[in-house]
Amino acid sequence: MIKVGIIGGTGYTGVELLRLLALHPQVELRTITSRADAGTPVSKMFPSLRGLVELSFAHPDEAHLDQCDLVFFATPNGIAMQQARSLLDAGVKVIDLAADFRIQDVAEWEKWYGMSHACPDLVAEAVYGLPEVNREQIRQARLVANPGCYPTAVQLGFIPLLKAGLVDISGLIADVKSGVSGAGRKAEVGILFAEASDNFKAYGVSGHRHLPEIRQGLSRIAQATVGLTFVPHLTPMIRGIHATLYGRLNRDVDLQSLFENHYANEAFVDVMPAGSQPETRSVRGSNRCRIAVYRPQQGDTVVVLSVIDNLVKGAAGQAVQNMNLMFGLPESTSLNIVPLLP
Amino acid sequence: MIKVGIIGGTGYTGVELLRLLALHPQVELRTITSRADAGTPVSKMFPSLRGLVELSFAHPDEAHLDQCDLVFFATPNGIAMQQARSLLDAGVKVIDLAADFRIQDVAEWEKWYGMSHACPDLVAEAVYGLPEVNREQIRQARLVANPGCYPTAVQLGFIPLLKAGLVDISGLIADVKSGVSGAGRKAEVGILFAEASDNFKAYGVSGHRHLPEIRQGLSRIAQATVGLTFVPHLTPMIRGIHATLYGRLNRDVDLQSLFENHYANEAFVDVMPAGSQPETRSVRGSNRCRIAVYRPQQGDTVVVLSVIDNLVKGAAGQAVQNMNLMFGLPESTSLNIVPLLP
Amino acid sequence: MIKVGIIGGTGYTGVELLRLLALHPQVELRTITSRADAGTPVSKMFPSLRGLVELSFAHPDEAHLDQCDLVFFATPNGIAMQQARSLLDAGVKVIDLAADFRIQDVAEWEKWYGMSHACPDLVAEAVYGLPEVNREQIRQARLVANPGCYPTAVQLGFIPLLKAGLVDISGLIADVKSGVSGAGRKAEVGILFAEASDNFKAYGVSGHRHLPEIRQGLSRIAQATVGLTFVPHLTPMIRGIHATLYGRLNRDVDLQSLFENHYANEAFVDVMPAGSQPETRSVRGSNRCRIAVYRPQQGDTVVVLSVIDNLVKGAAGQAVQNMNLMFGLPESTSLNIVPLLP
Amino acid sequence: MIKVGIIGGTGYTGVELLRLLALHPQVELRTITSRADAGTPVSKMFPSLRGLVELSFAHPDEAHLDQCDLVFFATPNGIAMQQARSLLDAGVKVIDLAADFRIQDVAEWEKWYGMSHACPDLVAEAVYGLPEVNREQIRQARLVANPGCYPTAVQLGFIPLLKAGLVDISGLIADVKSGVSGAGRKAEVGILFAEASDNFKAYGVSGHRHLPEIRQGLSRIAQATVGLTFVPHLTPMIRGIHATLYGRLNRDVDLQSLFENHYANEAFVDVMPAGSQPETRSVRGSNRCRIAVYRPQQGDTVVVLSVIDNLVKGAAGQAVQNMNLMFGLPESTSLNIVPLLP
Repeated sequence: MIKVGIIGGTGYTGVELLRLLALHPQVELRTITSRADAGTPVSKMFPSLRGLVELSFAHPDEAHLDQCDLVFFATPNGIAMQQARSLLDAGVKVIDLAADFRIQDVAEWEKWYGMSHACPDLVAEAVYGLPEVNREQIRQARLVANPGCYPTAVQLGFIPLLKAGLVDISGLIADVKSGVSGAGRKAEVGILFAEASDNFKAYGVSGHRHLPEIRQGLSRIAQATVGLTFVPHLTPMIRGIHATLYGRLNRDVDLQSLFENHYANEAFVDVMPAGSQPETRSVRGSNRCRIAVYRPQQGDTVVVLSVIDNLVKGAAGQAVQNMNLMFGLPESTSLNIVPLLP
Repeated sequence: MIKVGIIGGTGYTGVELLRLLALHPQVELRTITSRADAGTPVSKMFPSLRGLVELSFAHPDEAHLDQCDLVFFATPNGIAMQQARSLLDAGVKVIDLAADFRIQDVAEWEKWYGMSHACPDLVAEAVYGLPEVNREQIRQARLVANPGCYPTAVQLGFIPLLKAGLVDISGLIADVKSGVSGAGRKAEVGILFAEASDNFKAYGVSGHRHLPEIRQGLSRIAQATVGLTFVPHLTPMIRGIHATLYGRLNRDVDLQSLFENHYANEAFVDVMPAGSQPETRSVRGSNRCRIAVYRPQQGDTVVVLSVIDNLVKGAAGQAVQNMNLMFGLPESTSLNIVPLLP
Repeated sequence: MIKVGIIGGTGYTGVELLRLLALHPQVELRTITSRADAGTPVSKMFPSLRGLVELSFAHPDEAHLDQCDLVFFATPNGIAMQQARSLLDAGVKVIDLAADFRIQDVAEWEKWYGMSHACPDLVAEAVYGLPEVNREQIRQARLVANPGCYPTAVQLGFIPLLKAGLVDISGLIADVKSGVSGAGRKAEVGILFAEASDNFKAYGVSGHRHLPEIRQGLSRIAQATVGLTFVPHLTPMIRGIHATLYGRLNRDVDLQSLFENHYANEAFVDVMPAGSQPETRSVRGSNRCRIAVYRPQQGDTVVVLSVIDNLVKGAAGQAVQNMNLMFGLPESTSLNIVPLLP
Repeated sequence: MIKVGIIGGTGYTGVELLRLLALHPQVELRTITSRADAGTPVSKMFPSLRGLVELSFAHPDEAHLDQCDLVFFATPNGIAMQQARSLLDAGVKVIDLAADFRIQDVAEWEKWYGMSHACPDLVAEAVYGLPEVNREQIRQARLVANPGCYPTAVQLGFIPLLKAGLVDISGLIADVKSGVSGAGRKAEVGILFAEASDNFKAYGVSGHRHLPEIRQGLSRIAQATVGLTFVPHLTPMIRGIHATLYGRLNRDVDLQSLFENHYANEAFVDVMPAGSQPETRSVRGSNRCRIAVYRPQQGDTVVVLSVIDNLVKGAAGQAVQNMNLMFGLPESTSLNIVPLLP
């Protein structure tokens, strides 16, 4: 059994980790910390877990995290970088669901996240946890930077085109729509029900923190710096990301076959039949990404539709997938979930 | 392995049965029928099932249902009563998720459902599939009438009070709120998104088909005819039933202990701590019923709050629970689900 | 022109007052205050008002409220009682949309609201602003306590029954469902979109602050203390209250005629035809209350359905209705609104 | 008073016309037809109109439409082209809210709409009812083709760029999100609450009927054929369209000033301050279009955000605006509406 700890378990990625780990046959959930809610039974805050998770939130100082085999950071940005080193030194593997280790260019990270990085050397060591790109490195990693939700949906959609060198990389466009849980479980007026319901808006148009992460990932694949316009939107649903991606084709190919072949062996990426339009609910609660590719009116613009559940493949599910890889388990362990529809 | 067939699989109870059975370790899903959609892959209609269910909808005439061990009817009312006898004669067990076998008083049934009953003798044989009441009879049954969604939530909430003879049975009130999926996957204007969203209304106030079913169930428990006012409401959510139940107490007891003791051994009924208010999402996607009991201002009115997922404990989940009982499997097989929250 | 000021205009009742007053032909909107947002243009916080409201939020100290003819308090509880006297002394009329002057029994108020009352004498003077009950007193009032949203919906539904002495007043039940805007524009986790959407729950079952207000109003009508069980629920919609009211009849009458006659001359109470079920959206954005009355199965339980828009007839609209009365204007001025459907 | 008739009033554009016309000071609503619902009071189908609209639906044969001054067609595509000529011959002006007269290239129209056109000569006469482009022609018109909802939002966003010749017209992209009411009040499974709620998807990616309409409008402005990729999406809200528009700039200009100047005199187009992100709810129920323009990271991609209420500026409101122009009334008559927020 893998002894697992979770730091900062009161947010949506925390409760989602608990959902996925509660029934994981190889995991022993040892501790889950919360400074503010220490002592509160987890199932009191999240009654959905009554009868399934018996732990109470532990104060970090009393959580004995160094006795775990693996610790997940489900914390705000800037926490994991403070605590990862001591855990790694104690032989504990670490998966950070926040952004501390995602951007290799530390200066760039500091600009977007507005703080100094506490451990640039660990950034260099960290493996970016997108298994469809970095599976082998993840298997060997002791520190994994779990990708952001937008970056997961966008990269999985663009990768086959970039690998094949099919699009003008100077003018990629990612028009992406997210459910409101992507903003976290934070007391903020803008994401109140009465504000976000029956409403649609763009945000962060002049620059969103996921932009450098996506640009880094796409540039690695393209082996050149890409030009990317990224416009995120808030849509009135709880879970789900729908990325609509645009690029200019530089030659004619069978796009459907290209995508199908690229992902033929991936358990969690489903290239849908030509003419399909994936819905976010078709992956609700599951770790799948579903993709469709189009060339409207046979023009030179390619359109890719890519959907994930932002809390699963975009966060906790991908983290469990990475954990499975890091511990030599079948990649789908505890992730063989039927999406909840309707 | 239990060889299972589903008749009428294109509605919400059908796709929910598929979700629960797809990963059931003792079930071999043999066939799922649809007259209108014969030949269509199930996963084309329900992309959430891509990679998980390989069947296509079969025409009923070609489905070889008599070779199944169990057949679920996920059909409109009036279908199962036409077809159940031949299946039973062939040795197939039957669970009807519609209303054909729920009401023992056939004349009453005919009045509310507006048709003649095709097989009153089977009504007499059928076991009402509420395991918390009829567990032993279900184990022996070859024909189970799966309860309605409202009746499940209301009965589970009232039963401890009625068993203990604590309330005036002449004036019970059930004010119940349902998510829109309870109306089925039917093309009707009233349940369009633009009609049912951001809106709340009562319906069927002068008489709803679940009234006689609830009254029958409560009267059995009370061993006398109960007087019940039942007001269903449509609430803008996909899944979930919230029953708010009212009765006049005839004496003073420890209600919390009464409820906790009554359900102490039930895997799928969770009596919450005093002062709790169960949310429908705390059971989303799961087979649980969560209950809380109150006596506001220490008056003589008792208030019970009871929540279920209408498609699971209120339909497909309870049907699988019944199947497990009928085949001697652990009652929770394939039903050990963590609710999806948020 | 009536010179109007609004204190505390950044909440939902504030912006709703602005919506209704912006086009009011007899109102000159002089000032709207906000300590925290002083200097911010109103239309920056609420872009819906761009081109319609040119004011910026003013600091209370610079708002010259004493030069207004009328001041609305759209503040949290406990503010109006601090400031009303000086305004009244300056000859300014006051309408408080919060609860400070609603409960005549000051000790009862202090128990439920958890603070000492600053001016019990003004409580005695204040008129409870439910025009359908107190129209003449409102015309003469200089201080109006605008009713709560739940109390408005519940009282309008019960009044005809109580006036006629038709029901057992010891066991009234009000099962009421509110949209989320009723909780206000406050940064709280429980009313986030990802918490309140696709979810339904009761709250305040053991005691809600609107209980004493409703009980006071109903007892006045009944001329005796009523026994009331009040269970509020949160439903995933922005606006709207749906009250489902239950009472035991003590004799047989034509309920439909009773209600129609009672409200025959009321512009804002619509008794719907027998067999109707009012929807909350049928009053969305408008000042109407729609009511239907039932006697299910011809039993002795009467059921009343009563819907309002909590922000209009339940708050800002009723406040404008009261203002119109206080200044001798036609009661419907600026309130002749077609509900927004869908 | 303008004598007005509405043909086909049972859909969302019909009820929205009624909302706007019920209080129009210069309109006498003479008749509203519905073949299926003839005889039914309008306010029975739409209780929001109780007390405001006294008409019953009339059978078309008994509606005396030729005695009206103006007839609105709120019908499915293909109806207006059958009936417009006789009305025009009788001296009645006509506004078609459907698509029959929107596309000047009749062959193109027939390809996309799958029927033969009944009166190509009237297509040639019809004026495209986008006042911000064709105001003078509308004033003189006897037949107006009211624009589609997507085309309104997209054209208003792109027009200033195209007028100024600022973008590469071969690669325009319109990524547009619509509320569900845009699909109409039709009994279809795909737009049920339980299907469309908590879900997001693209549709019509390989070709949507509004594509040729948008392309025609933009090409007229650009005075050359534009290349456009148009991807519509369904988002879980009732009303609202959010267009996110992308183009490649061919030179550097002050985009904010360009947009502000272009729309300086338009009552219903609001160019928001730099850095704003318009929300659909900021125009809910109103006839406004709000626009913001961005040049992210100072690259060569321009991003325009454009929001409207699909039922108002995208349908009934624009139709009333056109009527006002055709009859010499102030353009804003009955359209001076404060959006409903929240």
